[in-house]
Amino acid sequence: MEFKFKAIGVIHSCFTTKEEAPIQGSFHPDAMGTVEVSAEFAEGLLDIELFSHIVLLYHFDRANDVQLVRRPFLDDTPHGIFAMRHPCRPNGIGISVVRLLRREDNLLHVSGIDVLDGTPLIDVKPYVPSFDCFPEASEGWFAGKGKREKPAGRE
Amino acid sequence: MEFKFKAIGVIHSCFTTKEEAPIQGSFHPDAMGTVEVSAEFAEGLLDIELFSHIVLLYHFDRANDVQLVRRPFLDDTPHGIFAMRHPCRPNGIGISVVRLLRREDNLLHVSGIDVLDGTPLIDVKPYVPSFDCFPEASEGWFAGKGKREKPAGRE
Repeated sequence: MEFKFKAIGVIHSCFTTKEEAPIQGSFHPDAMGTVEVSAEFAEGLLDIELFSHIVLLYHFDRANDVQLVRRPFLDDTPHGIFAMRHPCRPNGIGISVVRLLRREDNLLHVSGIDVLDGTPLIDVKPYVPSFDCFPEASEGWFAGKGKREKPAGRE
Repeated sequence: MEFKFKAIGVIHSCFTTKEEAPIQGSFHPDAMGTVEVSAEFAEGLLDIELFSHIVLLYHFDRANDVQLVRRPFLDDTPHGIFAMRHPCRPNGIGISVVRLLRREDNLLHVSGIDVLDGTPLIDVKPYVPSFDCFPEASEGWFAGKGKREKPAGRE
């Protein structure tokens, strides 16, 4: 079963290479970016500015081949692709929670961005703590891995 | 710009009609379901059982026409589609955080499910509190709306 989706805009960031892009936005909360929603969809942004955080869905347009089991950036032990957030997945969709600083018509100014400049935008959703925040959740294999840089040469 | 994605499995739940399906999984934390990942992708589940919570991405396959501004289930004031989680969106992708109870080969037993039985699965990601949990986020227009049933006849 196949589905077709279309870009509804584009994400602008200061990260132009995979090496520069942070592993997660929470590692670089000050990284600024702009989410540009295409004019034909701009009406759908009504009241988005009531939210302090939003969820971005986007297409990992520069991801390489899928490997179902691989070493992630934050660990040297291989894990399954569904047990990590790596871009090279069967369906290359990324999700990031970012802080919404302000809206300027169809432009959303955000911080805590971790995506490459020019990434196609698929969806914007409000982040709602009562739906999305589970502080009791385990960290899984991320526990104790801390924040490290991407290992050189690792895709 | 168009992207093609494919179902990587199917979500089973006890909700067979839109009227039955809860507005959010957090409203019905005891609702049980099963996420069935297709055999060809099952290897990618390695170590998923280390996580207590997972993020499901799925296709709103029974959604009706898109309206960029509409009344959501939880409010009688219209808002933009990107300021709500309603299924009828330009790209019909839903996200839900669910509790992972146990894994049985390519079956994930979960609770807190809010999707219709038979919903096509697009992706599974680990929920990681340090990436995904923002207790300080505002509730936007959801604040004070509480948990109500879907208004009768509202799509």
